[in-house]
Amino acid sequence: MRWLLMSAVLCAVALPALAQTTSAEDPGPLTIAKQGSFFVGGRDVKSDTLSTLPAYAASGTVTVDQMYVHFQVPAGPAAVPIVLIHGCCLTGKTWETTPDGRMGWDEYFVRKGRPVYVIDQAWRGRSAADISAINAVKAGKATPDQLPTVFAAGHEGAWAIFRFGQTYPQVMPGLRFPIASAGEFWKQMVPDFLANLPTPNPTVPALSELVQRIGGGVLMSHSQSGIYPFQTAALSRAGIAGIVAVEPGACPLPTDDLTPYKDLPILVLFGDYVDQFPRWAPRLANCRAFVAAANAAGGRAEVLVLPDIGIHGNTHMLMQDDNNLQIAELLLAWIGKNVTAFPKP
Amino acid sequence: MRWLLMSAVLCAVALPALAQTTSAEDPGPLTIAKQGSFFVGGRDVKSDTLSTLPAYAASGTVTVDQMYVHFQVPAGPAAVPIVLIHGCCLTGKTWETTPDGRMGWDEYFVRKGRPVYVIDQAWRGRSAADISAINAVKAGKATPDQLPTVFAAGHEGAWAIFRFGQTYPQVMPGLRFPIASAGEFWKQMVPDFLANLPTPNPTVPALSELVQRIGGGVLMSHSQSGIYPFQTAALSRAGIAGIVAVEPGACPLPTDDLTPYKDLPILVLFGDYVDQFPRWAPRLANCRAFVAAANAAGGRAEVLVLPDIGIHGNTHMLMQDDNNLQIAELLLAWIGKNVTAFPKP
Repeated sequence: MRWLLMSAVLCAVALPALAQTTSAEDPGPLTIAKQGSFFVGGRDVKSDTLSTLPAYAASGTVTVDQMYVHFQVPAGPAAVPIVLIHGCCLTGKTWETTPDGRMGWDEYFVRKGRPVYVIDQAWRGRSAADISAINAVKAGKATPDQLPTVFAAGHEGAWAIFRFGQTYPQVMPGLRFPIASAGEFWKQMVPDFLANLPTPNPTVPALSELVQRIGGGVLMSHSQSGIYPFQTAALSRAGIAGIVAVEPGACPLPTDDLTPYKDLPILVLFGDYVDQFPRWAPRLANCRAFVAAANAAGGRAEVLVLPDIGIHGNTHMLMQDDNNLQIAELLLAWIGKNVTAFPKP
Repeated sequence: MRWLLMSAVLCAVALPALAQTTSAEDPGPLTIAKQGSFFVGGRDVKSDTLSTLPAYAASGTVTVDQMYVHFQVPAGPAAVPIVLIHGCCLTGKTWETTPDGRMGWDEYFVRKGRPVYVIDQAWRGRSAADISAINAVKAGKATPDQLPTVFAAGHEGAWAIFRFGQTYPQVMPGLRFPIASAGEFWKQMVPDFLANLPTPNPTVPALSELVQRIGGGVLMSHSQSGIYPFQTAALSRAGIAGIVAVEPGACPLPTDDLTPYKDLPILVLFGDYVDQFPRWAPRLANCRAFVAAANAAGGRAEVLVLPDIGIHGNTHMLMQDDNNLQIAELLLAWIGKNVTAFPKP
């Protein structure tokens, strides 16, 4: 009901803006007030197996667990920032230019007046992994079972996970992912050391530090990182202005302590075809159960499934689908309506 | 002699610009015409050891060897772009905000009118490595000696490599690196699979494809990547407008085929303390020998060692030293004088 109303509002508000932004190849100049990058978190580790090469010392100290952050703050009035947190086997590239060369959410949100912070999860992308255990095995100081757990998602297996189709290379009807550019999408995928890390992932306390450092922000997750903003709120509500969980791999359980989510604007967003995929249908069901329980405990949570408001064909990678800016506009409208103030420090 | 003259010119030209840019905390807004990211290169690899986890298939195809590229094109007249190529154990973060929070060369060059392309070398940062061999050993299908060669540079060993001091934690007199923020610098370092890759590194053909795709550019390397622009020119001169080798780990040999460098503007830049470090003194000497030989063969190469023009205290990480924008201005002046046109396609 709430979404039917919002949908009507968006038809009036968002579409002219979209026409302006996406009809032309060149969206026009963008004025940035400030941009840059930094790290949050990090832990020094001493090791005797940093290297097996004579040119680099085997013994020494490295820093791991830090989280890389790249940011842009647009010129114009202050607005609550958005922190973009990528999912499994990917990096912050997720939110940038799409595989077929269209504008990503990172830039679109900035163009719409929001400071944007894009992270690389700990141990991935520009955030260093600890490879000491690999060299310990190579040097005969440890056994192969002590190798770190690291995986790479193959194209064929990822196909159904991303809901491009039921089996590779079959394609879902009405698919909005730019499948002709799938080859460019595969290049975004990186090895994932996730299973090697403690719970919560070091990314979680780093997110908490980040939102406090920047004076508050909306945590926007995707897929495997879906649980992180909730875990961050459980650590501390400081700096968390809202949570947008885009196709979360998991929501908190209805039986969890739900007090961290009281009065917190939370949106869980899913695309199309969910019920046709056994990996995803239960996840949506679990998130619905969480949302109901959170609201019963004084929460402000909602679930949006795009086909329910007449938007069809979206995959798990909806920030890269051909209507990605229409969805970005939906999210901005939700944030604009529900996240009305900077959180108290 | 040439540099004495240029130095005098720069005192008149560069210093007012620097005062404008660095005296204030806030350099003012920046207008971008276009920005985004993409990959160049990449190769599909089939593997049966992508994963040891039941949730992800062991068999499938992954894409590796691609090079991540992030770019910004400023508003204003067209100018020859600069491609920034980081060195050992680092990523494109090298060129961004310094460890103590000052502006990096990536943004400074854009503010001075240059399109800038920042890459992550193949198998590093946002450019995926192939981890199949790790899982092959973990699964008992290969022996530990077949593990990939990967190393992490420890703080203590890196100290002298970066010429912060002769031995950790001793500091060189007059050091310009923001050593109080060394902890933030260590967070930039990532594991390096370099020794595992063929020669030339897959980054080299990717650089060749990149400069052709963007209509030409100056290749600016650092340290371990120092030889890459020369190897790229040896593949093809197409798109290469000039080479700036910042503290290169290696220059071509004087006995190499030097025809790829004929008429090509080349600058080799070194900082301070070089003669006091046995790792670096021979490298500078070798580059001097290359420059002499290249010029004898019709080249337009030069070496600049900063203390020779009265600039002291610069380390191997001179793009992060406290006078980093002064050095950026020197390089822009050199490019402006020597790279006067887009290269022919």
